[in-house]
Amino acid sequence: MKIVTGNNLNDLQQAYRRPQLDNIELRPIIEGIFQEVREKGDVALKKYTHYFDQVNLSDFKVPSREIDAAEAELSEELKEAIRLAKSNIEKFHKAQDLKQDKIETVPGVICWQESRPINKVGIYIPGGTAPLFSTVLMLAIPAQIAGCKEVVMCTPPSREGKVNPAILYAAKLCGVSQIFMVGGAQAIAAMTFGTEVIPPVYKVFGPGNQFVTSAKMKAQEFGVAIDMPAGPSELLVVADETAVPAFVAADLLSQAEHGVDSQVVCIANSEQIIKDIQAEITIQVEKLPRKEIALKAIDNSVFILSQELDFTLEIVNDYAPEHLIVCLKDPQLFCVKVENAGSVFIGNYTPESAGDYASGTNHTLPTSGFAKIYSGVNLDAFQKKLTFQEISKKGIQNIGSAIEVMAEAESLIAHKNAVSIRLKSIKS
Amino acid sequence: MKIVTGNNLNDLQQAYRRPQLDNIELRPIIEGIFQEVREKGDVALKKYTHYFDQVNLSDFKVPSREIDAAEAELSEELKEAIRLAKSNIEKFHKAQDLKQDKIETVPGVICWQESRPINKVGIYIPGGTAPLFSTVLMLAIPAQIAGCKEVVMCTPPSREGKVNPAILYAAKLCGVSQIFMVGGAQAIAAMTFGTEVIPPVYKVFGPGNQFVTSAKMKAQEFGVAIDMPAGPSELLVVADETAVPAFVAADLLSQAEHGVDSQVVCIANSEQIIKDIQAEITIQVEKLPRKEIALKAIDNSVFILSQELDFTLEIVNDYAPEHLIVCLKDPQLFCVKVENAGSVFIGNYTPESAGDYASGTNHTLPTSGFAKIYSGVNLDAFQKKLTFQEISKKGIQNIGSAIEVMAEAESLIAHKNAVSIRLKSIKS
Repeated sequence: MKIVTGNNLNDLQQAYRRPQLDNIELRPIIEGIFQEVREKGDVALKKYTHYFDQVNLSDFKVPSREIDAAEAELSEELKEAIRLAKSNIEKFHKAQDLKQDKIETVPGVICWQESRPINKVGIYIPGGTAPLFSTVLMLAIPAQIAGCKEVVMCTPPSREGKVNPAILYAAKLCGVSQIFMVGGAQAIAAMTFGTEVIPPVYKVFGPGNQFVTSAKMKAQEFGVAIDMPAGPSELLVVADETAVPAFVAADLLSQAEHGVDSQVVCIANSEQIIKDIQAEITIQVEKLPRKEIALKAIDNSVFILSQELDFTLEIVNDYAPEHLIVCLKDPQLFCVKVENAGSVFIGNYTPESAGDYASGTNHTLPTSGFAKIYSGVNLDAFQKKLTFQEISKKGIQNIGSAIEVMAEAESLIAHKNAVSIRLKSIKS
Repeated sequence: MKIVTGNNLNDLQQAYRRPQLDNIELRPIIEGIFQEVREKGDVALKKYTHYFDQVNLSDFKVPSREIDAAEAELSEELKEAIRLAKSNIEKFHKAQDLKQDKIETVPGVICWQESRPINKVGIYIPGGTAPLFSTVLMLAIPAQIAGCKEVVMCTPPSREGKVNPAILYAAKLCGVSQIFMVGGAQAIAAMTFGTEVIPPVYKVFGPGNQFVTSAKMKAQEFGVAIDMPAGPSELLVVADETAVPAFVAADLLSQAEHGVDSQVVCIANSEQIIKDIQAEITIQVEKLPRKEIALKAIDNSVFILSQELDFTLEIVNDYAPEHLIVCLKDPQLFCVKVENAGSVFIGNYTPESAGDYASGTNHTLPTSGFAKIYSGVNLDAFQKKLTFQEISKKGIQNIGSAIEVMAEAESLIAHKNAVSIRLKSIKS
């Protein structure tokens, strides 16, 4: 990790600039996959599954007997861990179900907002080396709390045409309606248009590689909503002399092991802290099975020496990290001013992996600076809000003439009439 | 308006099917505009403004003296109406600022969510025959309440190179930072990339014609968020014998005057009500300045005779109207089951135009069935939510082993280590 210092944001931006994710060259490929899935449905899915996943499937739907059998394949310890995580994620996301009181804006004019579920949602769970059953929890639990009627899951099959039992177990536990063994852009296309076996959905959630991300962007063109654009995972740690260097090193490495394109930034207020953290990284990285990946990611990463907390804040808000760990003497004062971050972890005993798995917060978070715009996945993401209003005779008398004047100024006379006709009927 | 009846949703869907909005033929045009604005900035804006708005502008920015002078051009009556509307919109949107309590998911693990503004937002206000100052209120007020630092507004110039004073007055009243005289797809491109004078923004809001809508979809490809896809305005009225036919007719016409592509649907439970409403439409439409437009829109529209409230609900939830007026004996019972709608207006004295202007609710709402997925614009639309967590030694002891087990099952050993190293330090 290189070390940079300075007091000018523009200079530092070079150091923490993310690799550009311009997937322009993928677009024609995605375009082709979408067109074929739209036209040929399951036949296209079979073709692409054979091509990308090297397996011939006669049926994409995971049979319920396989889902039921998954539980027996997991250790008690893992099932217990999953259940604890589920309980915490549930508690936190249920607490997001806030109801706005009815507001009487003027006497007789009562307005309010109510939430309703998005009834058909799709969850994408990536395949690859690690079975990301934790992402099943993070997406299916808020969908269940929101009351989404149909929760469809797509995940690529293994070469044996199977899905990891931990994924199946988590999906069943969290009320996923149907599970399909389809991955990549073809899965996103299937959930966009629907095929013979896969139902179309209104909104697609979940992480994925650049094919999946490109496909999610494409799905938007067809009126399907997505949770957020997704890029490689990131962590920014802010540390002062109260931070434990060994803990910070462990957190940086936990981020770095995700992939060679993971980005890790650490802002500290003294050279000594940076040296101590570096020394710990050197020791700890040796024992990691994914050492090579972690070393490469660490190579792309950066330490920033900043002695002014206000400047540190400027960097944080400019970088807008997916994960932000704050190990400072007075973290609250700092956190109040954090404007752009996906999820914030406060203090020495709050590792990022707590939020990744079991503390209760969601781990599906905005990357690549999108924390400036998007929330992480939460209960709201599975709902939409409807406004309601109920106006009495008194109420329309109170706001009626304002509506008439404004409607007339916008040359919308029928809008005005809709009020005038009511006002007249009350007077007469 | 044609009258249909039946008890099969599939049959009726034909009757209320919306015209398809497939803007594929616009895409290359939008693509060209985006590329040129990205490369040539203001020079491209000047070209397109000359071409589309038939005016040569040397500067797009509305000077502050013009903004200040706008107030003097409006009647006291109109300013008072705008201020009343602002006050109500403010009250309703401020009441949406709900805070989630801190949740202790297990002892020592505290999680919460906080909102932060999206700091750079862009507001698009269409030009055309009517000056839509009400839309300025609907977008700039929640932006101001959210605390967005930079609120940029784009609106097409008149042929005299001016902006309507009511738009300028409303913008100033609601804290818009800068106003630019640029319209159409070129305005959306300018807010996406930034030009010499127009700053780039993170999220673009506002209605517009199919060029603007296509451009907003395009902006998403470059990482700019949008409020929602927009289509022609719609109204669905549900009426029984308690509805006043003259009021329903006025509401249907207020929707119909928006444009020939506006869609109006009315579900009633008796032929007599339908006849009474039709008779009222025939009388009222005669006096409208926009009679021709209203008649064409009414032509595309439909009455549905449905005697079963449950079936009526099915239709409503399938159609997912932007605006829903409920004039029923027991509206509450019905509204609880409404799942898909932008905004709901309850009772005989709650015309849609109340919500369009002054009751307090937002009029920027999902059309074209997008009410199945999207909320209308609200305070949340100008904010994102960050999650926070703070874990004590006790807390990490409570969830640590679950994290270790799950991380190991996902083959992420550095994630496990970040917990193990802390647990060990506590024990020792």
